[in-house]
Amino acid sequence: MGQAAVLSLAESGKRKIEWAWRYMPVLRALRERYSPSAPLAGRKLACCLHLEAKTACLLLTLKDLGATVFAAGSNPLSTQDDVCAALVERGVTVYSKRGMSMEEYSENLRRCLREAPDFIIDDGADMVYMLHSEMPEVLRGVLGGCEETTTGIKRLRAMHKEGILKIPVVAVNDALSKYLFDNRYGTGQSVWDAISRLTNRVVAGSCVVVVGYGWCGRGVAKRAQGLGARVIVVEVDPHKALEAHMDGFGVMDMKRASMEGDFFVTVTGNVNAIRGEHFALMKNGAILANAGHFDVEISLPDLERMSRSVEDTRDGVRTYTMEDGRELHLLAEGRLVNLAGGDGHPVEIMDLSFSSQLLSAMYLMDNPMDPGLYPMPCKLDQEIARIKLESLNLSLEELTDEQREYLDSFRD
Amino acid sequence: MGQAAVLSLAESGKRKIEWAWRYMPVLRALRERYSPSAPLAGRKLACCLHLEAKTACLLLTLKDLGATVFAAGSNPLSTQDDVCAALVERGVTVYSKRGMSMEEYSENLRRCLREAPDFIIDDGADMVYMLHSEMPEVLRGVLGGCEETTTGIKRLRAMHKEGILKIPVVAVNDALSKYLFDNRYGTGQSVWDAISRLTNRVVAGSCVVVVGYGWCGRGVAKRAQGLGARVIVVEVDPHKALEAHMDGFGVMDMKRASMEGDFFVTVTGNVNAIRGEHFALMKNGAILANAGHFDVEISLPDLERMSRSVEDTRDGVRTYTMEDGRELHLLAEGRLVNLAGGDGHPVEIMDLSFSSQLLSAMYLMDNPMDPGLYPMPCKLDQEIARIKLESLNLSLEELTDEQREYLDSFRD
Amino acid sequence: MGQAAVLSLAESGKRKIEWAWRYMPVLRALRERYSPSAPLAGRKLACCLHLEAKTACLLLTLKDLGATVFAAGSNPLSTQDDVCAALVERGVTVYSKRGMSMEEYSENLRRCLREAPDFIIDDGADMVYMLHSEMPEVLRGVLGGCEETTTGIKRLRAMHKEGILKIPVVAVNDALSKYLFDNRYGTGQSVWDAISRLTNRVVAGSCVVVVGYGWCGRGVAKRAQGLGARVIVVEVDPHKALEAHMDGFGVMDMKRASMEGDFFVTVTGNVNAIRGEHFALMKNGAILANAGHFDVEISLPDLERMSRSVEDTRDGVRTYTMEDGRELHLLAEGRLVNLAGGDGHPVEIMDLSFSSQLLSAMYLMDNPMDPGLYPMPCKLDQEIARIKLESLNLSLEELTDEQREYLDSFRD
Amino acid sequence: MGQAAVLSLAESGKRKIEWAWRYMPVLRALRERYSPSAPLAGRKLACCLHLEAKTACLLLTLKDLGATVFAAGSNPLSTQDDVCAALVERGVTVYSKRGMSMEEYSENLRRCLREAPDFIIDDGADMVYMLHSEMPEVLRGVLGGCEETTTGIKRLRAMHKEGILKIPVVAVNDALSKYLFDNRYGTGQSVWDAISRLTNRVVAGSCVVVVGYGWCGRGVAKRAQGLGARVIVVEVDPHKALEAHMDGFGVMDMKRASMEGDFFVTVTGNVNAIRGEHFALMKNGAILANAGHFDVEISLPDLERMSRSVEDTRDGVRTYTMEDGRELHLLAEGRLVNLAGGDGHPVEIMDLSFSSQLLSAMYLMDNPMDPGLYPMPCKLDQEIARIKLESLNLSLEELTDEQREYLDSFRD
Repeated sequence: MGQAAVLSLAESGKRKIEWAWRYMPVLRALRERYSPSAPLAGRKLACCLHLEAKTACLLLTLKDLGATVFAAGSNPLSTQDDVCAALVERGVTVYSKRGMSMEEYSENLRRCLREAPDFIIDDGADMVYMLHSEMPEVLRGVLGGCEETTTGIKRLRAMHKEGILKIPVVAVNDALSKYLFDNRYGTGQSVWDAISRLTNRVVAGSCVVVVGYGWCGRGVAKRAQGLGARVIVVEVDPHKALEAHMDGFGVMDMKRASMEGDFFVTVTGNVNAIRGEHFALMKNGAILANAGHFDVEISLPDLERMSRSVEDTRDGVRTYTMEDGRELHLLAEGRLVNLAGGDGHPVEIMDLSFSSQLLSAMYLMDNPMDPGLYPMPCKLDQEIARIKLESLNLSLEELTDEQREYLDSFRD
Repeated sequence: MGQAAVLSLAESGKRKIEWAWRYMPVLRALRERYSPSAPLAGRKLACCLHLEAKTACLLLTLKDLGATVFAAGSNPLSTQDDVCAALVERGVTVYSKRGMSMEEYSENLRRCLREAPDFIIDDGADMVYMLHSEMPEVLRGVLGGCEETTTGIKRLRAMHKEGILKIPVVAVNDALSKYLFDNRYGTGQSVWDAISRLTNRVVAGSCVVVVGYGWCGRGVAKRAQGLGARVIVVEVDPHKALEAHMDGFGVMDMKRASMEGDFFVTVTGNVNAIRGEHFALMKNGAILANAGHFDVEISLPDLERMSRSVEDTRDGVRTYTMEDGRELHLLAEGRLVNLAGGDGHPVEIMDLSFSSQLLSAMYLMDNPMDPGLYPMPCKLDQEIARIKLESLNLSLEELTDEQREYLDSFRD
Repeated sequence: MGQAAVLSLAESGKRKIEWAWRYMPVLRALRERYSPSAPLAGRKLACCLHLEAKTACLLLTLKDLGATVFAAGSNPLSTQDDVCAALVERGVTVYSKRGMSMEEYSENLRRCLREAPDFIIDDGADMVYMLHSEMPEVLRGVLGGCEETTTGIKRLRAMHKEGILKIPVVAVNDALSKYLFDNRYGTGQSVWDAISRLTNRVVAGSCVVVVGYGWCGRGVAKRAQGLGARVIVVEVDPHKALEAHMDGFGVMDMKRASMEGDFFVTVTGNVNAIRGEHFALMKNGAILANAGHFDVEISLPDLERMSRSVEDTRDGVRTYTMEDGRELHLLAEGRLVNLAGGDGHPVEIMDLSFSSQLLSAMYLMDNPMDPGLYPMPCKLDQEIARIKLESLNLSLEELTDEQREYLDSFRD
Repeated sequence: MGQAAVLSLAESGKRKIEWAWRYMPVLRALRERYSPSAPLAGRKLACCLHLEAKTACLLLTLKDLGATVFAAGSNPLSTQDDVCAALVERGVTVYSKRGMSMEEYSENLRRCLREAPDFIIDDGADMVYMLHSEMPEVLRGVLGGCEETTTGIKRLRAMHKEGILKIPVVAVNDALSKYLFDNRYGTGQSVWDAISRLTNRVVAGSCVVVVGYGWCGRGVAKRAQGLGARVIVVEVDPHKALEAHMDGFGVMDMKRASMEGDFFVTVTGNVNAIRGEHFALMKNGAILANAGHFDVEISLPDLERMSRSVEDTRDGVRTYTMEDGRELHLLAEGRLVNLAGGDGHPVEIMDLSFSSQLLSAMYLMDNPMDPGLYPMPCKLDQEIARIKLESLNLSLEELTDEQREYLDSFRD
């Protein structure tokens, strides 16, 4: 790429970042509050995140607070090259490229870690896992980390259970300011935004199968209903299944659901939630999308094995023609559709999530802890919600003294 | 009342109870499973509950499992006399009467406790509190209790914190099978059912102020929206306020909301959530309803103090005419509107809640514990959801071995 | 009935009427505007309407405008005796009684017509039909009529097509101020209000079959969805069926729907929409409700023929036990469930409908016309909406001159 | 552009067109039914439409039925060059280019008309208007036309009223198969799809102002609500305003709404619906989008006049910085946002609309008529809905003979 092209790329990235800043009042407020005292001066942070405009605001904030920042993309298809160019221009070290191979992906994580960071900000736990499995010497110098996905938390919990986790990690995903908003409203809107633009199909009147009714699945189901779909939920947990039923959704096992769906969205955090036995039953023209962290929820091997031909029929749509002539359309190669096929979560949502990452990272660097998984402190969690409410001019009701007392009382 | 009247009353109650049984598949299944072995034989249970048809099914199940049952109404306005008559006919001892005074109410609880029960099933913690405050000799013989309301749990927690609680109590309210359904879908539907029938007013197009956005408040808000209202939420907690905002509701403090609302519903579990300073700002014709456990959420003393006249203008509607001529209409004397002004939660909802009470009570009687508050065991909680799903012919997805393994893994 | 009982009855009716007045701002405004000039002085009006509190406000307004009013109930189960007593006390002649036989019902219409009215206000067209079929001598003196139901309009249109209709009638049902609100929001809310109170069953999670997707059906379906139900629509019209599909509802023929439904609501205006072949397929415990004008939409003869026993199992619920033991529960004897099992449409809704009746009647008495069906004049229709908006303090946008011109232009 | 580039462009267009065919079952069925007999052989059709993939399916169908087709883009920003290239390859004459100037736009229409077409298929009435105002000699040979937009119908009606319209035109917009679906569900989904991708902002919790509550406005409002927004409607018509109120939306005049909105969407079909006096009141960061046919609904001159600077801050976003520093963001230059900023209506929706265009055109060519505006014949309208239902396997209920008779009866 020539110099001019690089500059124009950086310019495009810069505009995207400036747009994002407009709608991130919480991160802006935290940057203003903390940057004068540069509390992260001298710190080296390695970040494995989806490298697009909103993430850039977090990375630039870390830098403005004094840190040296190394960033790798957390998914081969979610990296936006123009944003990376702009970050480089602003002094962030970036190792990533859209469409990189899995080998390049891993090598980019490795390059960040080789910088001997003090702290890890992770999305999916790949970087923390690599730190433990490949880089014991770097691991020794790491103070801790933050993790913002359900999938990452699950992996860290498993590592901790096996006694392998050697650093403290804040489970940012489990903060109220994060999962109540990001997983539900963020995933809900951005998944349908991406599916709409990739397919140009109508949602109203269609049958949408949501596989997994956790916080993400709830968001996806609610927005599908809001767009006029009939929704079917597939669940393994009896209470979640019953909730889906009471929310007015159909509830059935995956095999039965396979025969009904026009759109399938996986949000299970598990492997092969949709597989050969299900593809065999689907209607011609069905759309398959994954919104879970890894591209393992829809079985690509089964799809390929069962197809007589595979073709890219539209940007971001790969069509598998089954032996019997039915076409199944896979979106964004089975990677998280909202990031690989769109711009990811809305800006305002990531403002909450990244502010949670920021405060958690600052907290853990100031308060050394034993290895393990820790919740984000409630006070910080509340602080984020309060700043957000203020930015919206929404006023909370205040408890009176009488009411405060009543809450602690038990006499009539 | 003459013999014939009593008999006809019992007949009416019996019909109501039989109707309820039709739509309580979980409680029916548990009764069938356990009654042959009479696991409660020899037990004396004192129950303080809303004495209407669905409760009767629980009380009769306890009896069918071998227990001797003493029942008092948990609210002066929620007792249905015909149901009580039918219970008496079936051998349950009942101390309650619709419209009883607060003195009679307390005396009825006392009469149950004087029977020296082994176990307490409570709703609001009045009976457990009386047990501790007035009846130390009875207390010594009590194995434990169950409590099914948010308010009751709050009181018991306060007692435990002060070191006063002397028996183990299962916090049935906190079971998933209870609060996810009862507090949300149950309160949501039954509150609007009651408000509609008491007022005959249209909800569509109106402005509904929901005070408190806990599980009950969410249900009330969601159903109001489903009926076409614009909803405003008043909250003290920043995350709940932000959730209400993202759910599309207005968020403001109580004073501002006072000027907007056509209907006000309190579900705070706190005292004087709506009071003089708010009444002063309300529109002429506003409707005031409480759906919290106690009649303390709307300040009756303030209403009375500020009125130039008070009149019952419709069944269950008391109209307070302010000095300036504005009329404010209080429903069901400020008592929980869905029970005092209607039939309470739908049958299918109480099936889940009372099945939770039943299994919790059985569990605690079989597993003696130290004083304190205990969650309902997860296995029992899931069992209830499973039986319910089976009764609906809804099939859960089953995890494959590969998936089970994946959930415990952390390598890619 | 003794004098005291009558007086207390009238008192109860009076309170209900006063309650209704509070929420009928449009009718109040029209009464204030017109009563000083008594434009109906000397007129005799015969009204066949559902005799409950809101209707009373219309009848009293007619009287306050100078008319002599004779009223008969338009349905044996919708008459409220206390309201009738209050009307009598205020000088309206009432011929009706709750639970009257069909013979008494017809005789009451006849008694109104024998008073030789100048004008008819009808609901369902029974009175206008009787006028034509039995009372030619009275017919000659009648200036015209108003009809407010879809069913009534259908009948009048058929009479007109056969050349039988001898008076002009305003099709009030087809006014925007009427059907957009009454048929949709009115029926929607009041049907579910009635079903809830009659059955105490949960709507969330249930499957609701709405038979007929006209304006009433849309309201019933929308509110069912708002209460958390899955909705199936049965239709004969392809565009309405397609609309239901795009609104996210299931669409199928009645036979297939019969196997799915927990609740069935008929709003077809047709006969035997649900009949033997459908009852044969229904699930045990299904609820049957009609919201159409006549009790012919659910085939009572088929139900009776197919049952081995019939029993009233709850107030307003008749249970038919099929030969195979399945129970089907019919609400309110198959009569319009919202009026026979509840208080009918909300007050604010009837304010619009009855104001439309009033202005239409005044208009036709002032503007003699040939026999036939006439729309309500657009100007009057708009006037009602404008008064309503004013009462709500809602401000319309005004077209600028430039915009007015643009609307008539075709050049770019 | 080199030959290779053109070919690759055509290839991209071809893929888009093939994708669209997959989800256009009605147009496919009509093509199969009619193409064997080539009913349009010898006909020359001039079409002014949004030239993207779905439109291509209509144009290719016209060709497959025997017609010679000339196509011009109906909006400078909605033309997709790759689709045009594919059309040319298939033998359709295309005069259009994305981003053409208004002069080029007009000249392209002229070039189509110079081909002396027999029939016009129009979108917005620009071509029919040009035919009348500039090309009297061509006009004489034209049999008629079809028009599919509300705006176009308005203009044609005005022309007809002034006695200027010289050809018969079918008002396809007013067919049930068109406006019930295209204007509501089509506009509803595609507007929010476009706004999401252009802004990456969250809709949940935001305040959306919908200006105009016709069929398009209803769709936009309903989907905004489905995405979690609070919605305010601005209307000039009292019944529409009252409907919006009863649908749970805020209702106010444009000035008051200006102070509340985060997003503004115009769907009025009128000029300057949002103008200087409104921009002056808006919040910093407000988003302005138009979904009406012409780019006149948001006053661009006022925006420019009031700004101290204008900048393109994101693809499809032009930011106007007011004198006081507030930024207002205009999407897609004020052109219909769903087409200029996205892929337009979903495929399945245009299947219905274009099938209506096709059958209307065929009908009018076979049945010569006097100049004027004509509805699409009901039978054809129903035929489209029936084919669509069949493609979905949805079964209509059939009226019995008894029911048919009942519908024509008036006796009880």
